[in-house]
Amino acid sequence: MGAKARLDHARAVRVRAVRALTLSAHRVVFTPSGKRGEFADGTSLLAAARELGVDLDSVCGGRGICGRCQIDIAEGDFAKHALLSSAGHVTPWGEVESRYADKRGALPPGRRLGCQARICGDLVIDVPPESQVHRQVVRKRAETHPIEIDPVVRLYYVEVGEPDMHEPASDLRRLQQALIEQWGLAETNVDLATLATLQKTLRAGQWKVTAALRKGRDIVAIMPGFAERAYGVAIDVGSTTIAAHLTDLASGEVVAAVGAMNPQIRFGEDLMSRVSYVMMNPGGEKELTRAVREAMDGLIGEAARDAGVSRGEIMEVTMVGNPIMHHLVLGLDPTELGGAPFALTIDGAYEARGRELGLDIAPGAFVYALPCIAGHVGADAAGVVLAEAPQLREELTLLVDVGTNAEIVFGNRERLLACSSPTGPAFEGAQISCGQRAAPGAIERVRIDRATLEPRFKVIGCDLWSDEPGFAAATETTGVTGVCGSGIIEAIAEMFLSRIVSEDGVIDGGLAVRTKRVEQVGRTFAYVLREGQPRLLVYQTDVRAIQLAKAALYAGAKLLMERAGAAPERVTLAGAFGSHIDPLYAMTLGLIPDCDLAKVASAGNAAGTGARIALLNLAARAEIESVVRGIEKIETAIEPAFQRHFVAAMAFPNKEDAFPNLAKRVELPARKEPSGEGGRRRRRAAAPGPS
Amino acid sequence: MGAKARLDHARAVRVRAVRALTLSAHRVVFTPSGKRGEFADGTSLLAAARELGVDLDSVCGGRGICGRCQIDIAEGDFAKHALLSSAGHVTPWGEVESRYADKRGALPPGRRLGCQARICGDLVIDVPPESQVHRQVVRKRAETHPIEIDPVVRLYYVEVGEPDMHEPASDLRRLQQALIEQWGLAETNVDLATLATLQKTLRAGQWKVTAALRKGRDIVAIMPGFAERAYGVAIDVGSTTIAAHLTDLASGEVVAAVGAMNPQIRFGEDLMSRVSYVMMNPGGEKELTRAVREAMDGLIGEAARDAGVSRGEIMEVTMVGNPIMHHLVLGLDPTELGGAPFALTIDGAYEARGRELGLDIAPGAFVYALPCIAGHVGADAAGVVLAEAPQLREELTLLVDVGTNAEIVFGNRERLLACSSPTGPAFEGAQISCGQRAAPGAIERVRIDRATLEPRFKVIGCDLWSDEPGFAAATETTGVTGVCGSGIIEAIAEMFLSRIVSEDGVIDGGLAVRTKRVEQVGRTFAYVLREGQPRLLVYQTDVRAIQLAKAALYAGAKLLMERAGAAPERVTLAGAFGSHIDPLYAMTLGLIPDCDLAKVASAGNAAGTGARIALLNLAARAEIESVVRGIEKIETAIEPAFQRHFVAAMAFPNKEDAFPNLAKRVELPARKEPSGEGGRRRRRAAAPGPS
Repeated sequence: MGAKARLDHARAVRVRAVRALTLSAHRVVFTPSGKRGEFADGTSLLAAARELGVDLDSVCGGRGICGRCQIDIAEGDFAKHALLSSAGHVTPWGEVESRYADKRGALPPGRRLGCQARICGDLVIDVPPESQVHRQVVRKRAETHPIEIDPVVRLYYVEVGEPDMHEPASDLRRLQQALIEQWGLAETNVDLATLATLQKTLRAGQWKVTAALRKGRDIVAIMPGFAERAYGVAIDVGSTTIAAHLTDLASGEVVAAVGAMNPQIRFGEDLMSRVSYVMMNPGGEKELTRAVREAMDGLIGEAARDAGVSRGEIMEVTMVGNPIMHHLVLGLDPTELGGAPFALTIDGAYEARGRELGLDIAPGAFVYALPCIAGHVGADAAGVVLAEAPQLREELTLLVDVGTNAEIVFGNRERLLACSSPTGPAFEGAQISCGQRAAPGAIERVRIDRATLEPRFKVIGCDLWSDEPGFAAATETTGVTGVCGSGIIEAIAEMFLSRIVSEDGVIDGGLAVRTKRVEQVGRTFAYVLREGQPRLLVYQTDVRAIQLAKAALYAGAKLLMERAGAAPERVTLAGAFGSHIDPLYAMTLGLIPDCDLAKVASAGNAAGTGARIALLNLAARAEIESVVRGIEKIETAIEPAFQRHFVAAMAFPNKEDAFPNLAKRVELPARKEPSGEGGRRRRRAAAPGPS
Repeated sequence: MGAKARLDHARAVRVRAVRALTLSAHRVVFTPSGKRGEFADGTSLLAAARELGVDLDSVCGGRGICGRCQIDIAEGDFAKHALLSSAGHVTPWGEVESRYADKRGALPPGRRLGCQARICGDLVIDVPPESQVHRQVVRKRAETHPIEIDPVVRLYYVEVGEPDMHEPASDLRRLQQALIEQWGLAETNVDLATLATLQKTLRAGQWKVTAALRKGRDIVAIMPGFAERAYGVAIDVGSTTIAAHLTDLASGEVVAAVGAMNPQIRFGEDLMSRVSYVMMNPGGEKELTRAVREAMDGLIGEAARDAGVSRGEIMEVTMVGNPIMHHLVLGLDPTELGGAPFALTIDGAYEARGRELGLDIAPGAFVYALPCIAGHVGADAAGVVLAEAPQLREELTLLVDVGTNAEIVFGNRERLLACSSPTGPAFEGAQISCGQRAAPGAIERVRIDRATLEPRFKVIGCDLWSDEPGFAAATETTGVTGVCGSGIIEAIAEMFLSRIVSEDGVIDGGLAVRTKRVEQVGRTFAYVLREGQPRLLVYQTDVRAIQLAKAALYAGAKLLMERAGAAPERVTLAGAFGSHIDPLYAMTLGLIPDCDLAKVASAGNAAGTGARIALLNLAARAEIESVVRGIEKIETAIEPAFQRHFVAAMAFPNKEDAFPNLAKRVELPARKEPSGEGGRRRRRAAAPGPS
């Protein structure tokens, strides 16, 4: 025999030997994983799946109660998998399945309970998405990754031994024994609050209970009998509003979304005034903590009521927020965050029991607070990073979350940098004479006719433009009350594009002779956005306020770009402001650097999305913790370049500035010599415009 | 060269090579460990000790602040260790040591700070006991093992980096970094309550703090600057009284011992009436829990005041108690313990934060509850086992902790068995007509003249016998108010030895003709222990109550002996009752089985001692947890043999019974035919007397 023939012979012998060993074994392939193996006659498909590590769910442990292990006998795929027909290759529909179908509704054709159907021939088995523990939740925006479910809390139905005076093990020991024997969970522990419910629950369930285990270790709830509902809440604690998403931990479905004003507002409108309150009132941080925790607990209750979920079914909470909110929720005095060196008490992720934070949820449930990045770049920014995942992309992404501070992250898979910029509250409509919060009646869109300089606008709550018929009637109830953040951005950008405002931000008084829309107010001029009640004007001071805010934002981004030696290929605007602003106008004002406008997107409440990802996916927590540790933190307060960038960014982009993408879309003015009010001095000191 | 010569040569070469390598190294021997090594010139003795694993304490980490690493330059031992004189072999007394001596007092001659004295020649170093972390605490009773200190909480002085805006790590991260770099403690974590103190403490200590770490992992307290005091409290929660020992965790010294009545008494005198209260009043367990926790916290406060210790310096608490007390302290409903099958909620050891139990101690401090053995054999019995350590002995030990239930443990290093017996409260003076609690004025010792049948007695608070001159005057303030538990035991035992009471427990009415001390009361007779105000009589019902109690106790012990197939070689009586009872009388009544009376001892509050051992020694916790798991639990309620032993044990031991040790000491009556009140029936049904 030649070498090849010898090899072939050896292989044939081996194949025959394996066949002989597995004479009564059947081949089974699971899709979509492609995992395959040979199993003895009579093995349940759930047992086979477990042995192969196929992702097939089960809460009841194979008792035909939960229906989570449903599988399809995939007849259509046999050719592909080179197996024979499945007729008679699985045990027939049985009594347990009939009982299940009677109680919970008929199964689709070809579908079986994996724990009941037993192998008696070669099979191809398809695990539908809803039977997979690690199923994917697709997100609305096409460019974002789906959320893979990797549950932090899972339910385990167990049958616990009854007390026996001959073997006086405690109820807990017998529960733990059942978890070992029925689920292989050997290292479980329980907190006092959950433990206090154990005896009554065991007896109410007649020694059958469902235990909720966190990370397979902490028993956070015990429910009588078979239970299959486990929820979590992702909470985004903003300085102004708090948003909560009640989510099914198994399916990832948001079953209720609620929001409320942050009641801390009574202690101060913005963050710094709240920190001042604490500084002036010793122990005041406890009041602020109590207020925000009560609001969180109230939202949880509201969401639970909306969705018909009991508080005891809420088994995990995740929380994001800026550093001051994050610290106050955890009961940590934020005083140090009120001044340099802005030392956080804690920056890493933190886990505390919900009841420690005054949350009335499952007795042992935890709250997971995402990590903070730096003294001004909080767990909210970490949430944005988790949601947008710049660390997974090749493209350089600029993430901007605009609030009282803008939190800015820049980079890609190789390197991430972060900083915050003190934009102040102008973008939120504060410090703007006609500004107001985004609410029905607020102007949110503005267009100015380049020739006549006449404006038209849209208000929140009405789809008509102000110059369209029926606008007055449509806005009769709300009225036109003021201008919200995105409205003021558009107003000033349109004023700039209409040459009412110069690139230095000066309202051109010379136009007053041409149009009544420009009028003198003291020594400066204003633009009349709306006549009537109330009369809405954009004053020179308003333009200045927006200039300061946008310059701060741009300077922060510029600092990171300079440090990275690169420009962004994508820009993502996060937060409430970011989701309402039109990217074109943001770029026209120079809030954000030039970029292909098709690559500028709004991410909505990305911080909240990050909290929801952390709620559903345990691995995502480890990921964001590691990513945050690796982020290069830049403190703008001590970077000399920041001041330089800030001053340079006060002007609006002109034709000569490096905004090629912007210039394709709008007609930018050519550079002109600055006029009036110190513009000259500023331009001389600075680099030539935002670049 | 022959083989031996070759070997010798090789050895000589190796020795020369090592010498050459360590040319500037010096040999150092540490006593008492005998550990030795060679160290480079200039190595500090603390560093050398650490490298060798020598047990040398340090809190400040070698900064010459704590003085815990004091060592003796042991000149006297050189000959023994074959080293040269130490003159000049250690660096001279230095500045840091002078500063230490100025501040904290001079060191004894020859003593140095191990962190400051550096090696510059061969040395013998003695580590005195007070410089060892694992020093031993000798206990009062000679036969008990000393407690080795193996601290659960240790202090670590660290110098923490200041906040740096260029590297914005949080205060916690920098503290943890310091613990890694300065102490090698890599896996530390912190609870919210302790974390909330971090920023102020770091600043108050100017970035120097002392962290208290539990098991080298949980930061339970942070103190500004250098701190060296760490205390713990061992608490024994009895149904009647609660005792607390405030203990220095480093030295093991008890700095304050306090006790109080258990305020739960207002909900019921004995355990079962408290469980009934909970059953009758839903939520009543919360009241009982609150009451006992408040009492514990009050005692901690009292002990702290007594010893001049602050509550924040109390960093660990250990707790023992019977199962019902144990569960109530943990906030667990004891209802299930009120009836068969007596299911504990939890039997294993449990750790909870002190603040969860309402204890105002160091913010992150833990309470360690010792494990329960069975539904009636609690953490108090586990404490007794830990204190008496039968599992370490060859001799078979019978441990009896008498309360409303007697908790009984029997065995040796090979096997331990445990049960509880429902003795009822008779031994505590309850259900006895003249009974009272042990208090001044209570009769505690009784003797009866065998011929005249006249009694004499002693009362608590007076050293004189009642027939001695001055007794009336000495007891004028207290009076003679009743008979406590040990008094009633002695009274009945003396009545038996004086033949006033038969072996069946019947008061011999025939004696009424001989002495006024025996008088008829209805259809039975009584013995007049004291004339006067109050008149104190031992009634037939009192004898019966004691018989029932002692029979239960004996039957429990007998059950274990029978199961083990052996008799005890030692008997140890634990608890308040056990420490006041005279072993001779206990045996005379047949409370305990026959045993060499020299081997019958009282252990005092052994349960409390067990709590103190668990407080000081971490390994002891693992030990008792493992021992308790291995104990064979016998439930007397379902053991048919128990009833048999119980009936048989109703009689008092007679000459023919197997009490040879007892018979050597007292003149026991010979067996006689039982008389009256069903005695005959009982004796027939039963085995022949206690044996």
